[in-house]
Amino acid sequence: MSYDHFFADAVDALRRERRYRTFAEIERNAERFPRATWHSPGGPREIVVWCSNDYLGMGSHPAVVEAMRETALLRGAGAGGTRNISGNSHEIVMLERELADLHGKEAGLVFTSGYVSNATGISTIVRLIPECVVISDELNHNSMIEGVRQGGRQKAIFRHNDLGHLEELLQAAGDRPKLIVFESVYSMDGDIAPMAEICDLAERYGAMTYLDEVHAVGMYGPRGGGVAERDGVMHRIDVIEGTLGKAFGVVGGYITGKQVVMDAVRSYAPGFIFTTALPPAIAAAATASIRHLKLSGQERDGQRRQVAKVKAALAAAGLPQMETPTHIVPVMVGDAKACKAASDVLLAEHNIYIQPINYPTVPRGTERLRITPTPFHDDKLIAHLAGALNDVWTRLDLPRVRATGGERRVLAAGAAPLAMPVGGG
Amino acid sequence: MSYDHFFADAVDALRRERRYRTFAEIERNAERFPRATWHSPGGPREIVVWCSNDYLGMGSHPAVVEAMRETALLRGAGAGGTRNISGNSHEIVMLERELADLHGKEAGLVFTSGYVSNATGISTIVRLIPECVVISDELNHNSMIEGVRQGGRQKAIFRHNDLGHLEELLQAAGDRPKLIVFESVYSMDGDIAPMAEICDLAERYGAMTYLDEVHAVGMYGPRGGGVAERDGVMHRIDVIEGTLGKAFGVVGGYITGKQVVMDAVRSYAPGFIFTTALPPAIAAAATASIRHLKLSGQERDGQRRQVAKVKAALAAAGLPQMETPTHIVPVMVGDAKACKAASDVLLAEHNIYIQPINYPTVPRGTERLRITPTPFHDDKLIAHLAGALNDVWTRLDLPRVRATGGERRVLAAGAAPLAMPVGGG
Ligand SMILES: Cc1ncc(COP(=O)(O)O)c(C=O)c1O
Ligand SMILES: Cc1ncc(COP(=O)(O)O)c(C=O)c1O
Repeated sequence: MSYDHFFADAVDALRRERRYRTFAEIERNAERFPRATWHSPGGPREIVVWCSNDYLGMGSHPAVVEAMRETALLRGAGAGGTRNISGNSHEIVMLERELADLHGKEAGLVFTSGYVSNATGISTIVRLIPECVVISDELNHNSMIEGVRQGGRQKAIFRHNDLGHLEELLQAAGDRPKLIVFESVYSMDGDIAPMAEICDLAERYGAMTYLDEVHAVGMYGPRGGGVAERDGVMHRIDVIEGTLGKAFGVVGGYITGKQVVMDAVRSYAPGFIFTTALPPAIAAAATASIRHLKLSGQERDGQRRQVAKVKAALAAAGLPQMETPTHIVPVMVGDAKACKAASDVLLAEHNIYIQPINYPTVPRGTERLRITPTPFHDDKLIAHLAGALNDVWTRLDLPRVRATGGERRVLAAGAAPLAMPVGGG
Repeated sequence: MSYDHFFADAVDALRRERRYRTFAEIERNAERFPRATWHSPGGPREIVVWCSNDYLGMGSHPAVVEAMRETALLRGAGAGGTRNISGNSHEIVMLERELADLHGKEAGLVFTSGYVSNATGISTIVRLIPECVVISDELNHNSMIEGVRQGGRQKAIFRHNDLGHLEELLQAAGDRPKLIVFESVYSMDGDIAPMAEICDLAERYGAMTYLDEVHAVGMYGPRGGGVAERDGVMHRIDVIEGTLGKAFGVVGGYITGKQVVMDAVRSYAPGFIFTTALPPAIAAAATASIRHLKLSGQERDGQRRQVAKVKAALAAAGLPQMETPTHIVPVMVGDAKACKAASDVLLAEHNIYIQPINYPTVPRGTERLRITPTPFHDDKLIAHLAGALNDVWTRLDLPRVRATGGERRVLAAGAAPLAMPVGGG
């Protein structure tokens, strides 16, 4: 019996639907960030990356790189074990303290990724609360959906950022324990949850709150504690989750909260227990990054400034950007094939790398280029970007109508069993 | 409504059952491996680590550390994105080629950890095979159990390494597609699957095979390809999974197999798609480690020699080691409290760190110290270890009877919902 056809069929289905992905092979150039070498079919070439989630360029910050290098020299390349069996490095313990402090919480817990922190964190928390109803935003990231699913509790999905609907669901859950699961910055649309109002509802209905700040940590709030810090509601959120792999520029994920909650997750979460710990060098690099961004507002200010300039330049060029209150600048295309073509021309002819964002990462008909300006995308690069986009839009005859909020509605839940849920990937 | 008591109760339950874990905080010393600094309650102290899964000390190998340092300098600390969105570094592409070559397969696919490679790899593979029956060894690691569970297919569990039982289950599955999921080296008992015979059965009954070589890669086979390489059956296994975090000394996980299978998993596995890629520096360090161990047999020979010496020294001291055909040396205690006490005395008075392995990592009544000698545990350290264990066994009046195979039987499946399945953690 050959099994190959099952896999071949699955891949063919993606090709037919124009969802088959090819990954651009690139070599980041730390000294010339955001520039990188693209291993193009025609040979290596320097490009400018406009779609990285190393939002502040901290992956290239000397303090971060030096912490990684120094720690690798002193401690070696890996942790050598799970947290329980010889892998509990001094560096990871310090990182957890730093994270607790960042979010004003009693304790922090580090995982191998933000994905794992959500998947095993949420599922473990809800399994520890008998009869818990999970109330989850419809646009939550795949890792949160996995966490909810794996938790196996009753769930209720509220329309994206819709407080009225959230309240209905809280009421419907009655006296049962409830966990509200949501994000601060939604990464594909760049919009922000009404956080204070969600906290009001949580308090009124006695719900626990779990917030994903993956696209906000490092970038919002006076110390980079995220949107909850900026909005003064950190203390009202029970569990704050984040990543070390985006604005902090390294890799890994975490949750923070009360000591007793962290201790319970530490003790019960399989995705935390049964895996090799992050290397001390990674932990040290992340700690250096967090510490730097706690004290320095320079990167945040620089990013805000350059983001504003990008938005202005695209507006001036008459390009259909989706308005956002964040650092994320989606430019709508609305068609998978056209979106891929736009990206291809930008890369091949303008040395600009912006990965097309197609279904299932975003709903069909809302395909887009997602631009993430860093403080290091200087004015010259911005002018080049706007010119290149304008050229591509003209040549490919792409729509220039301004997008409204309508495309935010996610696909109905009844997708095919193998469809991948929405989320940045 | 306060939720704290749910978490406090869960933690209390562990304390009552003596399953509450405290992690020893340590700083590895790359230059003096396997020595480390223990942050003891009384202050920092040098200890010898005897329970690391950095089995060959590759985490401290100059070529590995240098690859990590050099790449961090050139490429920065992180990947900056998911594989699809700017995170597909040249280094990770090279690593996947290296892994494919290591296992004699067409392609490889890297994940953030071995845990994730199993969980999202197995679940995705079985979801892509309609009507698939998963036939899984009862002692499989938690990450494989998660993969099977998340796959949502019918499953059948065969008694550990029991070929007769496996054949029964294959027969019972009839004409349906079947995936056999098993490990090569089982990490807690240190025994090895009858791999050629499992391949015979798979071929006879037309089953696909998925093999976890996490505790064997780097250490078995002429190029470190694992037990399947050593036994000449690599080409008979469909998917070989491994970790970069144990013998290779870094962090991360992978699967290897046919191009079409890897492409399908790459395209459908949420735990692969929706997460930041491993940093280039990690990929480069892992590649350096694999390349070194492909050519050099010195570390494998050294490990084998020192393992034999440890086994001989423990036998001479009359300590109840479980006999194993591998590098893993379990010394049986058979009681959670005594096992923890033995570990505490070893650390406090002999500066020897061996984490106690208690339920649920192993079945109750089979609590043990699990010793993992590396090539760097020299004869003096071995003599010191044997003397210290002998002292502890006498002082704590621990049993010296030789363990039989009986303790290998895992607990019945009907464990409490929150009990953690067997697996190294
Ligand atoms: C909202 C959100 N949460 C979690 C994650 C996962 O974080 P990580 O990349 O660290 O796995 C992502 C994206 O990767 C995300 O967009
Ligand atoms: C058999 C087995 N598979 C997979 C894993 C997970 O690998 P990793 O530590 O890379 O997550 C482990 C232990 O950690 C293991 O023992």
